[in-house]
Amino acid sequence: MLQSLLFTKTRKDAPKDEVSKNADLLIRAGYIHKEMAGVYSYLPLGLRVMNKIVGIIREEMNAIGGQELSLTALQDKNLWEKTNRWSDEVLDVWFKTTLKNGTEVGLGTTHEEELTNLMKDFIHSYRDLPIYAYQFQTKFRNETRAKSGIMRCREFLMKDLYSFCRDDKEHAVFYEKAKQAYVNIYNRIGIGDITYITFSSGGTFSKYSHEFQTLTEAGEDSIFVDEKKKMAVNKEVLNDEVLNDLELKRENLVEKKAVEVGNIFSLGSKFSDALDLTYSDEKGNKQKVIMGCYGIGPGRVMGTVAEVLSDDKGLVWPESISPFAIHLISIEDKEGKVLTSANELYNRLIASNIEVLYDNRDVRAGEKFADSDLMGISIRVIISEKTLKEDSVEIKHRSSGVIEMLKITEFLSKFLK
Amino acid sequence: MLQSLLFTKTRKDAPKDEVSKNADLLIRAGYIHKEMAGVYSYLPLGLRVMNKIVGIIREEMNAIGGQELSLTALQDKNLWEKTNRWSDEVLDVWFKTTLKNGTEVGLGTTHEEELTNLMKDFIHSYRDLPIYAYQFQTKFRNETRAKSGIMRCREFLMKDLYSFCRDDKEHAVFYEKAKQAYVNIYNRIGIGDITYITFSSGGTFSKYSHEFQTLTEAGEDSIFVDEKKKMAVNKEVLNDEVLNDLELKRENLVEKKAVEVGNIFSLGSKFSDALDLTYSDEKGNKQKVIMGCYGIGPGRVMGTVAEVLSDDKGLVWPESISPFAIHLISIEDKEGKVLTSANELYNRLIASNIEVLYDNRDVRAGEKFADSDLMGISIRVIISEKTLKEDSVEIKHRSSGVIEMLKITEFLSKFLK
Repeated sequence: MLQSLLFTKTRKDAPKDEVSKNADLLIRAGYIHKEMAGVYSYLPLGLRVMNKIVGIIREEMNAIGGQELSLTALQDKNLWEKTNRWSDEVLDVWFKTTLKNGTEVGLGTTHEEELTNLMKDFIHSYRDLPIYAYQFQTKFRNETRAKSGIMRCREFLMKDLYSFCRDDKEHAVFYEKAKQAYVNIYNRIGIGDITYITFSSGGTFSKYSHEFQTLTEAGEDSIFVDEKKKMAVNKEVLNDEVLNDLELKRENLVEKKAVEVGNIFSLGSKFSDALDLTYSDEKGNKQKVIMGCYGIGPGRVMGTVAEVLSDDKGLVWPESISPFAIHLISIEDKEGKVLTSANELYNRLIASNIEVLYDNRDVRAGEKFADSDLMGISIRVIISEKTLKEDSVEIKHRSSGVIEMLKITEFLSKFLK
Repeated sequence: MLQSLLFTKTRKDAPKDEVSKNADLLIRAGYIHKEMAGVYSYLPLGLRVMNKIVGIIREEMNAIGGQELSLTALQDKNLWEKTNRWSDEVLDVWFKTTLKNGTEVGLGTTHEEELTNLMKDFIHSYRDLPIYAYQFQTKFRNETRAKSGIMRCREFLMKDLYSFCRDDKEHAVFYEKAKQAYVNIYNRIGIGDITYITFSSGGTFSKYSHEFQTLTEAGEDSIFVDEKKKMAVNKEVLNDEVLNDLELKRENLVEKKAVEVGNIFSLGSKFSDALDLTYSDEKGNKQKVIMGCYGIGPGRVMGTVAEVLSDDKGLVWPESISPFAIHLISIEDKEGKVLTSANELYNRLIASNIEVLYDNRDVRAGEKFADSDLMGISIRVIISEKTLKEDSVEIKHRSSGVIEMLKITEFLSKFLK
């Protein structure tokens, strides 16, 4: 894409009402726009990063047998009354509204109720199980505090997978697969090394749930990390019994601030009991369906990456989620020779389906570089009178800062492979 | 995908509370699930069709310079008060809810206000224009009647593009491009021949708007069609002046029922005036930004296709939006020889990234065929003892019913190209 056509522009001034680094950077670089506290629009660059993250999550969910669907925001009160979660005292983040005929409806904060009820149409026999169904869907949560940029929102995209199994054993096998899929996701997104599987409270049906916590001072959680074992315990559940269970020693633990970028949860038959979802086993006996849920917010992950991988010049995207693969920058000479070569290079890259943002604007080199640093595209390619003298381009890796000169032919053969 | 793993199943009985053909077929074939009147979930097959439609629309919007973003559902009351559209008496389909602090917010029924306000951050000079921005976003409309299946919903996906131009002339050029893009969309989706550009009322800033109306008895609109000129006029605006304007003759018009599958609208400076979005021209003078909006509901398009292209056996998807390219059906023999060949064929297709639904279930051939007819995948490939005797498969085109025998090698070379 030609940067001259991109409608967003960078801005130098920090947005007035933001205290979080992720929102500050993402707004200044033109990735998001604040509509109200905890409610952000995704502009073209932001949407591109979001879609990359969604793509990675989708691949990992499909790889473990997930089937994608799309549930609704509007929620039927009757279902939530059956699980005793309709009351604002039980679930304190509800947004509620009413149909024209006066019927009260809620905006989905999570989707166990809707999907469990839906599955009653499809789960009857042991032959129908297991089922792993997931979606990317907008959740609404009426948060009192929403000061962490896109890391805590009132309206946000979430991937939620729900598993429906025949018994605890089948559930346990899938739960481990899902855990590994989550590890893969954070590794692929570039925050694997600072993201810890963290033991947290488990609810009625299992002793623990697992959170994925990424270390950052901007996080709202406190976790105790065993760096050698690459394990952590949420402060909320830390006690001697838990340490004993997990074979952890208090002296090996370090307290850290972290943000929860995902969690997985065994639900047992809590929802299937309440909504009467059962199946007939091989002998025709009625059995409980055993469920689990597996959540991850692509927007929160994006905010976390913005928070932890950025530097004092701006955003730093890992290649896997960079809005464009290449930021091509032309530095003009007087004869317009650079422009011709830059256009040619751009067209070759585009023809090969490489995602390129091409800064063809008629502005100073310094401004182009500052904007490029702020925007954080993973690889910058500079073409100028100087590089052309050697039939080369200059490659700068945004993350490492490493600069290399490459012959244009070499560069092309490297990227068009 | 293996059909034995697909969690949805077809059902023979019509859903109780549906009067529309599209919802009846889509529910029976396992494409959608009704949550409440006018609120439907999209199951894996339905989501695949939806994504195909979205993909076609996205390509056409990108081709005319559209930049994709994603706005929010939660709406700031202040903006809508400025355009005088907050009141339920003015806009009678609002869903409203409140933040914890008591602030009233709305759920977006459309997004002129939010995007116009957002553009104030990016539009300052004539150099910043034109801008064409679009999104695929969930709209909420508190409809009193919602009996047309996915053709009229309380919650539904919508593609809405908004154009921001320097003047009426620049607007008019883009408006014509958008109109042609819409024509392309309906052609590609397979309903071009029965979809009419229909003149409708234009509002304050232009005499007409243009609707895209697809002929169907299930439609809620009445239009007058000139079949030769491939033009139509909405009944609401039909009078002598309009006929004169459009050079149409009453005697050439036929009244038809139709469903509005898209509309495009010149907005003039209605929203930019109300929200104070202006730009400086070459001379530094403040000028009005001229806007247009261009809407299409992928779900309504899907419902319309289900309504108009289906037959008495079930759904009929055009190739461009079929949930899978191929429905592979194996008819078992006793020795399991067919199974081996069918598995092999399936694996070859999958390895070449062909989207295949493979009915490997252990059920009668008649049941497989009936399910396949109901589900409506555009091409059916049958492999059986009979076809294998001739090293062939039988191809059946769902739409035409045409059957052909093809050598497996021929079939592969045709589809793997």
